[in-house]
Amino acid sequence: MNKSMTIGEYLIEQLSRHGVSHVFGIPGDYALSFFDLMTKSDKLDIINTCDEQGAGFAADAYARIKGLGAVCITYGVGGLKVANTTAQAFAEKSPVIVISGAPGVKEQEKNPLLHHKVKDFNTQKKVFDEFTVASTILDDPATAFYEIDRVIHCALRYKRPVYIEIPRDMVSVPGVRDYQHSRSGDISDPHALQEALTEAVQIINSAERPVILAGVEVHRFGLQRELVAFAEKTQIPVATTILAKSVIPDNKSFSLGIYEGATGLKEITEYVESSDCIIFLGAFLTDLNTGIYTANVDTARSIYATSEKLTIYHHRYDNILFKDFLNGLSDGDIKKRTETHPVPAPPPPFHPLKGHQKMKVQRLFHNLNSFITKDNIIIADVGDALFGANDLYIHQDTNFLSPAYYASLGFSVPAAVGAHYANPALRAIVLIGDGAFQMTGMELSTIARYGLNPIVIVLNNEGYGTERPMLDGPFNDILPWKYSLIPEILGRGKGFYVDNEKDFDSALREARDYTEDFSLIEVKIDRDDRSPALNRLTSYLAKEVK
Amino acid sequence: MNKSMTIGEYLIEQLSRHGVSHVFGIPGDYALSFFDLMTKSDKLDIINTCDEQGAGFAADAYARIKGLGAVCITYGVGGLKVANTTAQAFAEKSPVIVISGAPGVKEQEKNPLLHHKVKDFNTQKKVFDEFTVASTILDDPATAFYEIDRVIHCALRYKRPVYIEIPRDMVSVPGVRDYQHSRSGDISDPHALQEALTEAVQIINSAERPVILAGVEVHRFGLQRELVAFAEKTQIPVATTILAKSVIPDNKSFSLGIYEGATGLKEITEYVESSDCIIFLGAFLTDLNTGIYTANVDTARSIYATSEKLTIYHHRYDNILFKDFLNGLSDGDIKKRTETHPVPAPPPPFHPLKGHQKMKVQRLFHNLNSFITKDNIIIADVGDALFGANDLYIHQDTNFLSPAYYASLGFSVPAAVGAHYANPALRAIVLIGDGAFQMTGMELSTIARYGLNPIVIVLNNEGYGTERPMLDGPFNDILPWKYSLIPEILGRGKGFYVDNEKDFDSALREARDYTEDFSLIEVKIDRDDRSPALNRLTSYLAKEVK
Repeated sequence: MNKSMTIGEYLIEQLSRHGVSHVFGIPGDYALSFFDLMTKSDKLDIINTCDEQGAGFAADAYARIKGLGAVCITYGVGGLKVANTTAQAFAEKSPVIVISGAPGVKEQEKNPLLHHKVKDFNTQKKVFDEFTVASTILDDPATAFYEIDRVIHCALRYKRPVYIEIPRDMVSVPGVRDYQHSRSGDISDPHALQEALTEAVQIINSAERPVILAGVEVHRFGLQRELVAFAEKTQIPVATTILAKSVIPDNKSFSLGIYEGATGLKEITEYVESSDCIIFLGAFLTDLNTGIYTANVDTARSIYATSEKLTIYHHRYDNILFKDFLNGLSDGDIKKRTETHPVPAPPPPFHPLKGHQKMKVQRLFHNLNSFITKDNIIIADVGDALFGANDLYIHQDTNFLSPAYYASLGFSVPAAVGAHYANPALRAIVLIGDGAFQMTGMELSTIARYGLNPIVIVLNNEGYGTERPMLDGPFNDILPWKYSLIPEILGRGKGFYVDNEKDFDSALREARDYTEDFSLIEVKIDRDDRSPALNRLTSYLAKEVK
Repeated sequence: MNKSMTIGEYLIEQLSRHGVSHVFGIPGDYALSFFDLMTKSDKLDIINTCDEQGAGFAADAYARIKGLGAVCITYGVGGLKVANTTAQAFAEKSPVIVISGAPGVKEQEKNPLLHHKVKDFNTQKKVFDEFTVASTILDDPATAFYEIDRVIHCALRYKRPVYIEIPRDMVSVPGVRDYQHSRSGDISDPHALQEALTEAVQIINSAERPVILAGVEVHRFGLQRELVAFAEKTQIPVATTILAKSVIPDNKSFSLGIYEGATGLKEITEYVESSDCIIFLGAFLTDLNTGIYTANVDTARSIYATSEKLTIYHHRYDNILFKDFLNGLSDGDIKKRTETHPVPAPPPPFHPLKGHQKMKVQRLFHNLNSFITKDNIIIADVGDALFGANDLYIHQDTNFLSPAYYASLGFSVPAAVGAHYANPALRAIVLIGDGAFQMTGMELSTIARYGLNPIVIVLNNEGYGTERPMLDGPFNDILPWKYSLIPEILGRGKGFYVDNEKDFDSALREARDYTEDFSLIEVKIDRDDRSPALNRLTSYLAKEVK
């Protein structure tokens, strides 16, 4: 096999083999030959964004849903524009392959001052080494195929970004003949695994009221079905972190909702913190996940399993794959529980108030909650879009996306592009503040170009609303745009401006029925109106600012 | 002095002392306390952009004109968004101070998972070490003042970016009392300088037809007056590189125009290449500066002086400041020249063709050439906006800005913001392609917010026109926007759509008279219409792609 396949062809082949059917990016002369090859290939499609930043976020969203994603850009001016989006993918465990064009190997001889070069020809790779788990420059046909395999394997193994640089004169060069793809998977140490499982099962069974705190890795490693099976069987209640919202649906009998320390809902916080056995599964104790470290849970008195480590109480097991541990628990002899526990409230019916009732954030989320179905994916940007959305009732797993740890504003609009291509069956509802929208919102152009139909809800509170309660000043203001006119610029889509309950409700319904293109609903809210969740949070955040 | 001054206050004091009166940026919780301090200070103003990328480009433009600039952003999500703009500032020698907020020193203890963190708390600094000449984290009050001085000194010494990270709990902490600012300037080795000057003067005087090739460093080190004085006195003709366009005005008797190898104007190329003594002053031999290395000039048979090295023929002098060498030449006993040489053609009068004459790129630049005055600064984005603009006749020094080496698309609109605050007397004319505009053009919002009045000309050729002649495909297409409607979204400014000579000419004049806000002129040109300069260039660029 692979007789006389070129390096570019082999890279496309491997992307496709691992489920990547869409690559997001923008060309540039150092990347043109690879773009050309991708265009001519029947294995994948290129999705062009307006700015590389948008391509980076789209690839991140795609990777979260599909298990692997790719962004392709040119050297320097393209690559460094996805530094931030790649850092987010690293921090939040999203396996994005960054593919960068580069000057040809021949051009690089004698170290000339080629355009887009910064310090030396390795500058970009060195930068990406800071937020990828593997990187390579495909400058040698003898090793290129092996390198591609190695790097993609790392992305899949660690669920984090990797970096592949392809000098433009290497795209059409044949790699080694008769190359055998031969990377075997990692395996757990069977004895360590057995010992850990025996101990865990015994601890869980002797606990009065065990609880599972499920994190984002359950999603990233594709273990949602396994977790649900485990919880179905044992009826141990499952809370999730903010970052992992929608890792299990809210309508399961064992669902508790989101746990976030003192900033979360009181009944969930109390239930989790009073448990005598917390089983952490793939959860990272970040500041936002733990309610700015108000979480009163002690991993040293818990079972704590992630892809990076497995600890029980104060001791640590090595060489155990997270997946094997979770599957082992599922198969273990764990008794069924019958304790009652809080459950996420199913969405109450919503009736807009008559007359010109100003739109309030809390009521907006109430309305949305009754509006969304299992066929929607909610993509929440940073700010009250995210915090308010924490209380949304999610009907099916993976129907909620947000950068709830790294928290880079401007994720959601380009993420809707990535989410569409990862799962076209879901219609995206984007929740975004006006500040975040002004960063990347014009990627609506990409949405218009490809005829996608998300419903984009812009919460317009005239600036960086999350920061105002921490420390306010003119630096938190932004210019008010007439967001609802954007469809006129793009020549597609429908725009709405609403400032009251009735109009918002009508706009939502009209947008739902308008499926041929995107809708943008600008919702004017008061400058100081916030969701209850954000009010709880910012009082803690403000303490650190002054 | 400096009794009980805080670290934040001292940083503001030093920015101001070195001429920085405007800082571009976007806050975030880790940067809020420093934003608050800047707002309350009477020494500088904050200019808020839509996205951090815009702030980075604005600070770069400001630094090029004013000699020092600053961008202030938050940790991670802000900092990494200016990675690309800082790389450009590094590559093109623009002294930008990147000031990043960061988690407090106390918060960082125990290495917790704080939001916006990537790998560890040093990740961002390590990234910036790749494209800055000095960096520091102000985590120690005992050294903070010294560190601020050291790092700003490096920015000024090397005319390149530096990085200052200020943990949020350090902003209000007093530094050392009675700190004496005591950094002395660098000096040349007087003996080496004397020897180099003697040799250079003798070589120049014995040459038949010396020529000066002036580069961007003459601008960056503020040596334009010195160069003009030297050329006035000796009448040695001066050509400039693309990157250094406008380093001297075109209307001087000794001006030759732009030298760019085989891709430049034939008479200039011949004049320069047939010289028996080329004096390189602050010029870097990049690919675009040398017409994709078609330049037929040999630095080993020349006098070659930059801030980084001084060589004459094959030998090298160390420890000589570029400035001292140029001043020494100026004072040297160099004979006056009388040879005739090509001169830049003063702009011929332009008369729009009557009737509906399609707009052609060449005619657009012809029209512009007769339109601009010494009160305009031309800011050209990458693409034909830049290459076509090479032929513009510039009336006064520093009236032309463009990223002609690193070549990052999207520079020009935010650069107009920076240019305004660096020199409010100049009215900017922005030349930008539609592809570049879709990246950062919405920074018109910043222009609208602060009531600036540039004339922004969008060359709409439906995509990445510079790439089409190299290798074309659907990846070079973009969605057509109705650019002229953007003022309606922003609530300020005037929009024009033109597709013929007459309308373009009227729009230009109307925009000139409309001084209260910005104008945006969308010029529809044919997909394959290009300036003569770009046609010359792309035939060389295309050779490397395939």
